[in-house]
Amino acid sequence: MTDTTPDTALDIIAIGNALVDVLSPTADDFIASEGLTRGAMQLIDADRATSLYAKMGPGVEISGGSAGNTVAGAAALGARCAFVGQVARDQLGEVFVHDLRSQGIAFTVPPRTPDVPTGRCLVLVSPDGQRTMNTYLGAAQYLPTSALDEAQIASAKVLLLEGYLWDPAEPRAAMKAAIGIARKAGREVALGVSAVFCILSHRADFTALIDEGQIDILFANEEELFALTGLDEFEAAVAAVAPKLRVLVATRGPAGAVAIADGKRFEVAAEPVDRVVDTTGAGDLFSAGYLTGHVQGRSVEQCLRMGAIAAAEVISHYGARPEADLKMMVDARLG
Amino acid sequence: MTDTTPDTALDIIAIGNALVDVLSPTADDFIASEGLTRGAMQLIDADRATSLYAKMGPGVEISGGSAGNTVAGAAALGARCAFVGQVARDQLGEVFVHDLRSQGIAFTVPPRTPDVPTGRCLVLVSPDGQRTMNTYLGAAQYLPTSALDEAQIASAKVLLLEGYLWDPAEPRAAMKAAIGIARKAGREVALGVSAVFCILSHRADFTALIDEGQIDILFANEEELFALTGLDEFEAAVAAVAPKLRVLVATRGPAGAVAIADGKRFEVAAEPVDRVVDTTGAGDLFSAGYLTGHVQGRSVEQCLRMGAIAAAEVISHYGARPEADLKMMVDARLG
Repeated sequence: MTDTTPDTALDIIAIGNALVDVLSPTADDFIASEGLTRGAMQLIDADRATSLYAKMGPGVEISGGSAGNTVAGAAALGARCAFVGQVARDQLGEVFVHDLRSQGIAFTVPPRTPDVPTGRCLVLVSPDGQRTMNTYLGAAQYLPTSALDEAQIASAKVLLLEGYLWDPAEPRAAMKAAIGIARKAGREVALGVSAVFCILSHRADFTALIDEGQIDILFANEEELFALTGLDEFEAAVAAVAPKLRVLVATRGPAGAVAIADGKRFEVAAEPVDRVVDTTGAGDLFSAGYLTGHVQGRSVEQCLRMGAIAAAEVISHYGARPEADLKMMVDARLG
Repeated sequence: MTDTTPDTALDIIAIGNALVDVLSPTADDFIASEGLTRGAMQLIDADRATSLYAKMGPGVEISGGSAGNTVAGAAALGARCAFVGQVARDQLGEVFVHDLRSQGIAFTVPPRTPDVPTGRCLVLVSPDGQRTMNTYLGAAQYLPTSALDEAQIASAKVLLLEGYLWDPAEPRAAMKAAIGIARKAGREVALGVSAVFCILSHRADFTALIDEGQIDILFANEEELFALTGLDEFEAAVAAVAPKLRVLVATRGPAGAVAIADGKRFEVAAEPVDRVVDTTGAGDLFSAGYLTGHVQGRSVEQCLRMGAIAAAEVISHYGARPEADLKMMVDARLG
């Protein structure tokens, strides 16, 4: 099922929002009093970002962004990765790019002028580890099609697209172009649908992409599958989507995950965690583990286990980027 | 021993380097190959900061600075605090100021133009939790005397000075002026000597301040006491310095701490820690606990215990700012 062409220079190239997360432990009553939906992600503008930040407690800044988190995890697991996203020429932009490159992830998109700053996600972390995300996209929403390097995309086994980025017009056009390049080169295309609000806004587009066979691998959680299908029962939603894909990976939080690959069904339990500190990035790191196993030609069972291991690591500490040696963890548990 | 004037608006006002820490887990061989001294702090220029950052792994950004960490800890313990330091008008400057203000710490120094950026400390964290610090002072070294608010300094029970800031000329002049203001108002002056290199550079100044009775409370670790006194035996070094102070607080890492207060000797064991993750800020947080107990009029034994509890919390996670509810921890353990 994986691409075995010997000349692929990259395993995964991801297109996504270039964001730095600002994480702050927060009581649930603050989330309620700010009119936020606990556990959800919402887009905010620059003014709201400033006013919400002023009310938040002390923070920790860690590079984030859904697809960025996925390639950070995949690189930590040994995959050769590139990331495509837009930062501004400012300090948070430097941080974001540094954190990718220092993991050996290729990043070649030039920064924009700093009049629109690098995007950030204000993440309120509840005492139980649930996170409520408030994203100011900043420069990220201006990723132009001209930022794409056709040869680079054509050289990667898998093109991973971040659903969040379907919202702004410029990156959406860039992602459509990237799909064309990848398909023409005979590569696989993976999509993380990212969030329910994202599906509700772009259901027709996502459905069309899936129906047309443009997507090989889809990552979604339970609620996202419901939003995508209009169904409210997990197995029915899976059954409605899976036949249109080579692989559907459906995550269910503490209940584990299911993959339907080439018509066969596989399941994995969630990896045990001592204490859930911060669930930011759980889905992104599940995708990282799964995709890395996939490009390494592992069995679907092993891909799922790698996803579960990577997700468990990231929810055991603050931030959506891996801290422990993921590769060693996987090697120790899977051999 | 504590100031009991009822009209003090503040408990602690601190003058120190405004720095954002960039923490990255690092193998000891990288520290050696870069020619760095494990566990030490050294000053670096902008070019070296750029080149070292490029070689470092992915990082986490958390507000730092020795005196800034101390007031962050003191505020978390319930003390009313202000901080005086210089940031630039840039994103890291915003982060630093936000993290203070969001804890209720007063901060009124206007940011400088961003041509010299906000200072940062590249912290390489070894697997055993030891940290090696590389500080680019940036804007912090330009704190001018004009940034001082005389009424604010006069309104604080304790003026805390960061020894690191004795190095650049402008903040040194500002700190000398601040000592004059505090003493004239009948307040106490505390000094953290910060680091051995700092003492070696400014031993004559520090010795003169202590000999002249300008310092009421001195915080130093074992090596710093050796550097200050030229002695190489702990008890002898303590005996040489303590009589010139109201309080000497000498920290000894895992061996606990000693205080000599008004001629009497007190000791505390280190608070047990499950796992030492990152020792950045251990001394700063010991000072935070001690000083908060001090301004609350607690016994020296309780001040030492508060120092030990705050230091133990900060070494159990990444970063030099408290994460847990320090006040609740102290209330539970001391009543």
